[in-house]
Amino acid sequence: MSKKKERPLILVTNDDGIFSGGIRALVEVASQYGDVVVVAPDKPQSGMGHAVTINGILRIQSVQFIENVKAWACTGTPVDCVKLSIYHVLGRKPDLLLSGINHGSNSSINVIYSGTMSAAIEGAMEGIPSIGFSLLDHAPDADFGASKHIASVLIEKMLLLGISQGTCLNVNIPKVSKEEIKGIRICRQAKAYWEEAFEYREDPNGRPYYWLTGEFKNHDKGEDTDEYALANQYVSVVPVQHDLTAYHAVAELQQWEL
Amino acid sequence: MSKKKERPLILVTNDDGIFSGGIRALVEVASQYGDVVVVAPDKPQSGMGHAVTINGILRIQSVQFIENVKAWACTGTPVDCVKLSIYHVLGRKPDLLLSGINHGSNSSINVIYSGTMSAAIEGAMEGIPSIGFSLLDHAPDADFGASKHIASVLIEKMLLLGISQGTCLNVNIPKVSKEEIKGIRICRQAKAYWEEAFEYREDPNGRPYYWLTGEFKNHDKGEDTDEYALANQYVSVVPVQHDLTAYHAVAELQQWEL
Repeated sequence: MSKKKERPLILVTNDDGIFSGGIRALVEVASQYGDVVVVAPDKPQSGMGHAVTINGILRIQSVQFIENVKAWACTGTPVDCVKLSIYHVLGRKPDLLLSGINHGSNSSINVIYSGTMSAAIEGAMEGIPSIGFSLLDHAPDADFGASKHIASVLIEKMLLLGISQGTCLNVNIPKVSKEEIKGIRICRQAKAYWEEAFEYREDPNGRPYYWLTGEFKNHDKGEDTDEYALANQYVSVVPVQHDLTAYHAVAELQQWEL
Repeated sequence: MSKKKERPLILVTNDDGIFSGGIRALVEVASQYGDVVVVAPDKPQSGMGHAVTINGILRIQSVQFIENVKAWACTGTPVDCVKLSIYHVLGRKPDLLLSGINHGSNSSINVIYSGTMSAAIEGAMEGIPSIGFSLLDHAPDADFGASKHIASVLIEKMLLLGISQGTCLNVNIPKVSKEEIKGIRICRQAKAYWEEAFEYREDPNGRPYYWLTGEFKNHDKGEDTDEYALANQYVSVVPVQHDLTAYHAVAELQQWEL
């Protein structure tokens, strides 16, 4: 009997919390490709970006999840979960890191605010092949059928071909059925922005408070953007890096003669 | 009598909180160049990255600060402060956004975890010329003398020359006297990483918890990095962008034949 090739160790996390539907869908797919360990926030951590808990403590506890899948719920942010996984739970780097499937879009500049994508970026910073998945549907009971198919395609490619050091993937999936998806496109991040508004309210004691609300504005007409792909029923895949240096601006700054 | 040129409106924020020494130093410098408004967190928000408060409420209240400077303390993150400033407090974009002076380094990959820099990046996303300043000294009573001089040099240049749309500056200042600073260098972000460790403790009830600790590791030998500049007593200036697309990886992904 020949020795079987070892199954890859796959870490799964997210920002909607360990009890969301999206992470369960992702674990179901991931389990076909390797041994899955889940370390995810114990509560929703959307919009936490690349936050880490340095002024407070972290707790972590094992929870029931799916048969044969070890799972831990953590009090911290998605990035905390990645750090805890590598340096405490696993004691090593996993072979693949998957984040999501997020309930809602993380396309365009939303990548920067997204806990889902920050977990994937943290993975890339650690040299781990990492993918963040998001479905353009905020509903808690969103249908992840098409997303599971797309995830399996991309996981297979990533395990087979890998990706440049320091790079991860931001995958967004349109809210349509598997049959209606026109394909998968490699894109750049659209240049868009949020026009914010703050909704004024008063608490029962008459003291004011605010809710952040806003409207997403995309004036980027490029046909190579993630927004364009999604609007045309394609899955968008944006390679994402954590080197924020604006190399094009270096020469400009040399002119400042500092 | 000729009409005086209008003074620029300068927004100042930070992540160490409105009562830190670093923001006071920055406001003192900024006041020489324009009308300053301060909107900053009401408590330390270090390591909050690009987090925004979307699952909770925000409060803001005006506080005493320095004569002739209007100031508000906000319950949210540094990025919340920027959004609140533009869309609520000021009702318009300021002419310049300054963040800091941070008590501690935000060089290399720390830019990604930094609330100070995320505030500046948010400014850049809004099209505002923005600079984040950090001093390599964590002490609450750090000496900001040299930093104030550097800030004045860069504020003057930024007001005069501006910078490419979507770009902001990450300025780190070595912990030496003004006389010992060898100059200002335009740099790229060093490729470094954190080797983390989690310190195990038990609460008074015997339940475990953890503190995130870690060691910063820089194996980047480049002499054009921020780490190299700082180690050689230069101020580092890295132009920072919010387009995270890894353009070099697009061709690589086309090979995946998705």
